[in-house]
Amino acid sequence: MQRFINNPDDLVDETVAGFVKAHRNLVRLHPENPRVVLSVDAAQPGRVGIVTGGGSGHEPAFIGYTGRNLVDAVAVGELFSSPTAKSFADAIRAADGGAGVAVLYGNYAGDNMNVKMAMRMVGKDGIEVATVVANDDVLSAPLAERDKRRGVAGEIFMWKIGGARAAEGAALAEVQAAAQKAVDACRSVGVGLGPCTLPAVGHPNFSIEPGTMEVGIGHHGEPGTKVEALRTADEVADEMLGIVMAEHAVAEGGEVAVLVSGLGATPINELYVLYDRVEKGLSGRGLSVHKAFVGNYFTSLEMVGATLTVMVLDDELKRLLDMETASPAL
Amino acid sequence: MQRFINNPDDLVDETVAGFVKAHRNLVRLHPENPRVVLSVDAAQPGRVGIVTGGGSGHEPAFIGYTGRNLVDAVAVGELFSSPTAKSFADAIRAADGGAGVAVLYGNYAGDNMNVKMAMRMVGKDGIEVATVVANDDVLSAPLAERDKRRGVAGEIFMWKIGGARAAEGAALAEVQAAAQKAVDACRSVGVGLGPCTLPAVGHPNFSIEPGTMEVGIGHHGEPGTKVEALRTADEVADEMLGIVMAEHAVAEGGEVAVLVSGLGATPINELYVLYDRVEKGLSGRGLSVHKAFVGNYFTSLEMVGATLTVMVLDDELKRLLDMETASPAL
Repeated sequence: MQRFINNPDDLVDETVAGFVKAHRNLVRLHPENPRVVLSVDAAQPGRVGIVTGGGSGHEPAFIGYTGRNLVDAVAVGELFSSPTAKSFADAIRAADGGAGVAVLYGNYAGDNMNVKMAMRMVGKDGIEVATVVANDDVLSAPLAERDKRRGVAGEIFMWKIGGARAAEGAALAEVQAAAQKAVDACRSVGVGLGPCTLPAVGHPNFSIEPGTMEVGIGHHGEPGTKVEALRTADEVADEMLGIVMAEHAVAEGGEVAVLVSGLGATPINELYVLYDRVEKGLSGRGLSVHKAFVGNYFTSLEMVGATLTVMVLDDELKRLLDMETASPAL
Repeated sequence: MQRFINNPDDLVDETVAGFVKAHRNLVRLHPENPRVVLSVDAAQPGRVGIVTGGGSGHEPAFIGYTGRNLVDAVAVGELFSSPTAKSFADAIRAADGGAGVAVLYGNYAGDNMNVKMAMRMVGKDGIEVATVVANDDVLSAPLAERDKRRGVAGEIFMWKIGGARAAEGAALAEVQAAAQKAVDACRSVGVGLGPCTLPAVGHPNFSIEPGTMEVGIGHHGEPGTKVEALRTADEVADEMLGIVMAEHAVAEGGEVAVLVSGLGATPINELYVLYDRVEKGLSGRGLSVHKAFVGNYFTSLEMVGATLTVMVLDDELKRLLDMETASPAL
């Protein structure tokens, strides 16, 4: 394992420690819970607080999206594992400025369970909590069972939109509605070319044969829907775009936001090659890109591969997407 | 080769095409030379223009540092190869707002030659050009032969400082002096854990045995000064910090800027583990970190490894480092 690690058991604590030091102008550690990262601005009196959380190993997600007009508090889990209910609860309490808290997270069994438990824990404190569960990963379940789909990089758009709506001073139900609208407007797909290794395990927990690619791979190596021969970047981009646009009913002249994220070990130039082709495909459909994000925004340790997320915009989503933010990742 | 590519010969053109599309609010392509990327603001009348350039495969370097108060024009080379003299000349002409142009680049034979040729080419146009050559890579040559050292991630600080000084309206000699001061205040070192592959070649052009690390590795896989057994992240960070601080004479209470960059395939959480230890080591020396950058800032395709750069600050460098910028990478 060619990796910069100490004791694998300390990896998350050391990551968070380095992170809050490097970005101390934007974030700080929860004073009592080292598995909760806070925006330096949180909580803001009278403003809806934004909370998220998830397993580690996806950096800059989730902690990198803590900051101004974005996420107020992040619960941090072990590598590829949900944060505890207590960490979610501490994050909710820390983000509460008296106007309620929106917990915007991804659709995973552990997160669902722990967020629910956290809501019960903070219920006694009289904190009003609303949730939005991202389920943007198209190939993780059929459309008819959309509530079974995983949340992936579309979560970034959910946080951005929800955080901006909260910054506008909207009420909890309005923040929840805006974040849900973002999720509903997002579709994502991942393609894996190489696996990743949890340091405590020491070897990949799945394999991708050289010369093949796994279409629909999840952020933790969850199997895709098919293994295909690896084709050219243009063909892969066309396939990814076809998958996410198949569920988007958007008229010609429409505008979208696009996120191409590397999974950790794919060279950044290749992400731009994919983006180039994706934008061509969108133009061919009569759509224009209002804003694009290309880089390592939501990774899976050193997995080789990429995700594509397309969010269809309306005036409200455009306005919220364009709001200025300051966070380590965005 | 598990990579998203089309014809390897098209990789650079497709990267640049995707890049200028994704960041069209900040950058544009030179109207006549597809191997020159310009800031949308360039050239700015009466302001010193900032030019850089280098081989591709280091994304977001070099193109990602094009933008407001940063680099005005970037000459783009093939993968790991210098841009042509013509591309440097076109970049210089495009960046010239009548106050001269500072070409701030890294110390590589091809770049040195092509920048010199470009200066002769633009001489007839009456454009005044000054150069600064980054040579921050400590282990690439002894201190007594510092002019033989390569430029690596310290170039980012050189561009930031030079670009900020130009934005202040300084004259060409002042911009050159500030950028040179940044280079003189920077020391860097790279540690490689795994090689990278040029797509046209199809296999790595060097190897790093599992369980070992190459200390002093260059951005193109240039051999380091020693191959050692891979140790813990803390031990590696201590060694890297020792190497860069050995040449820094800085009194207790001093302030520094730190950049920990991944080389392409190292998980981002591990960069924070390194940073955590580096900051501890600096504290132990009585130094504080004014600003930190942790992420994939200057890569080498999918090389596994990291670089550490420390820039010792004075009031001028702090002021210039803190100036607001807008570019795809910074």
